Amino acid sequence: MPELRQNFFSKEWVIIATERAKRPEELATHRAVQPIPAFVETCPFCQGNESKTPPEVMRLPANGSEPWAVRVIPNKFAALSSEAQPTRSLQHLRRRIDGFGFHEVIIDSPDHSKYMGLLPDAHVADILRAFKQRYNTLSLDQRIAHITLFKNHGSDAGASLQHPHSQLIATPVIPSQVRHRLFEALRHYDDVGECMFCHMVEREIEDQTRVVIKSEHFVAMEVFASATPFATHIFPLRHMASFGDISAPEIVDLARVLRTMLAKIYVGLENPDFNFTVRSGPAEYAGARHFHWYVSVIPRLTRVAGFELGSGMFINTVLPEAAAEFLRNVSVDKAVGAGAGV
Amino acid sequence: MPELRQNFFSKEWVIIATERAKRPEELATHRAVQPIPAFVETCPFCQGNESKTPPEVMRLPANGSEPWAVRVIPNKFAALSSEAQPTRSLQHLRRRIDGFGFHEVIIDSPDHSKYMGLLPDAHVADILRAFKQRYNTLSLDQRIAHITLFKNHGSDAGASLQHPHSQLIATPVIPSQVRHRLFEALRHYDDVGECMFCHMVEREIEDQTRVVIKSEHFVAMEVFASATPFATHIFPLRHMASFGDISAPEIVDLARVLRTMLAKIYVGLENPDFNFTVRSGPAEYAGARHFHWYVSVIPRLTRVAGFELGSGMFINTVLPEAAAEFLRNVSVDKAVGAGAGV
Repeated sequence: MPELRQNFFSKEWVIIATERAKRPEELATHRAVQPIPAFVETCPFCQGNESKTPPEVMRLPANGSEPWAVRVIPNKFAALSSEAQPTRSLQHLRRRIDGFGFHEVIIDSPDHSKYMGLLPDAHVADILRAFKQRYNTLSLDQRIAHITLFKNHGSDAGASLQHPHSQLIATPVIPSQVRHRLFEALRHYDDVGECMFCHMVEREIEDQTRVVIKSEHFVAMEVFASATPFATHIFPLRHMASFGDISAPEIVDLARVLRTMLAKIYVGLENPDFNFTVRSGPAEYAGARHFHWYVSVIPRLTRVAGFELGSGMFINTVLPEAAAEFLRNVSVDKAVGAGAGV
Repeated sequence: MPELRQNFFSKEWVIIATERAKRPEELATHRAVQPIPAFVETCPFCQGNESKTPPEVMRLPANGSEPWAVRVIPNKFAALSSEAQPTRSLQHLRRRIDGFGFHEVIIDSPDHSKYMGLLPDAHVADILRAFKQRYNTLSLDQRIAHITLFKNHGSDAGASLQHPHSQLIATPVIPSQVRHRLFEALRHYDDVGECMFCHMVEREIEDQTRVVIKSEHFVAMEVFASATPFATHIFPLRHMASFGDISAPEIVDLARVLRTMLAKIYVGLENPDFNFTVRSGPAEYAGARHFHWYVSVIPRLTRVAGFELGSGMFINTVLPEAAAEFLRNVSVDKAVGAGAGV
């Protein structure tokens, strides 16, 4: 029988459609393996081509022979402009703000072929350090209200360049979707006196059925009311509202958990396009007792159709519990560092 | 300069990214014309194959030689089951309901090749009559809280069968996204004493820049804070919260306006995949003074990426005012009734 499940953070309902149910392995892409070169002459993100990008905002040095580990640059085709000012206007019911904001690119590594799930853990930790540094620096700008960190992998996930990279967009508003989750979390805190995310994480660890990895500081799990197949959340066990407060040992641990999850998705589902995003409370809520940041990983295995657009409700054909079991059983020991063409 | 615009219904912000701006015609698909046959032997929706579908729920008779004009059938791969009961349970923070609901298919016409935008207006009116009849019949079921009517056209829009058809999903909950819009509309009514949709429609007609078609009973316009290129809303001029209250003359008029908009999108953007959805208030709010139903048409010309998933904010590269001007200038007089292979 099909089932409706409620996402407790957004209060949105999801249909788990068992009549259309698929076994997790049926979702694998069956893509032909395409060897990817480590260097592409026309790629602006490859080493040696640094002059093809706007001047860099920061770089982290490499340990080995490479010129750098991670570079951060302004997006050449930025959605928002740091030159504008966030001036507001309201005319009738039409509210607008001049397009102020920051849009940056975090280049994962100098190597064109090194998908994040196949990088060494220590290198993924460097990428997360760059995330934290840019997050905290831009949060100091009083005109910035919220920062979204994300990755697009593959053209179905919106990536226009193949060279592995992540992005950051800092906006002068808190997105309404984020505000709605903050409000629901605050209401739970008012009612029950606890962070609903902390409560949920505790119960999920007890229950185990949706947990894929539990480490010292993090838990990676399939989402109870998952809108799409294999949607995965990674929660810090310590209560923290803002990603900017992640500690040095937590970065090392998250690097291993995130990299392992991406490798499991890469191996088990045969390199699907995917997005991940850091869902953090706004920096100004850093001390909030009701909100809790997390990483959301979303493989792009299905299409959004009219029902989803018209109602906001999603139809998911894979049981989250089956997805969790599948991912627990994917072995990725051999995948790390294998690089091109895997 | 880029610009942030607020969707007044959802309070979500959209980035109109002028740095990445595209002229409307750049979004055209440039698809090769594929002739489509009027009959496909293996298609369960074609005339003569009626026995391949579940028993029909209703049919509208044809005027000419065809066996019927419109058929409505239960979806063979239904997302929800009419056999279930909407029993609720709550365990910790995990809320679920057994998957009760209705999922029906409205077959637009017996002809496999007849895209809705190229059907005669009188036939589109028949489709809308079937929409209304099913909407009102299912609304009588006290277990149903909300009904979504929608169309998926093309595989990027989630269509799995080529034969033109629409769908209806009736759920035992009001989707949270719909409830959020109802709440914002009620707040506006409380503050100002008017339906915010009526107010907006009046101002848009005065302003003209985003209006594409104004008829006796409807206005079709590009959306001020459009999340994606060419998102189009069609509003009834008369205040009505529920689609179920549309009158006979209004159906005739909407058929012409909707069909013309779909034909303009078909010709101007070269048959892109698209969705449309009827955004109606729940039937139980039929008399509500604060809500107003409308049709939303969404061509699927772009991909949703990590920023959109992580924040709920969209980046749109086409100015809605430019899209409106482009669509006003697309001539579709010759397109109607041309059928296959246009």
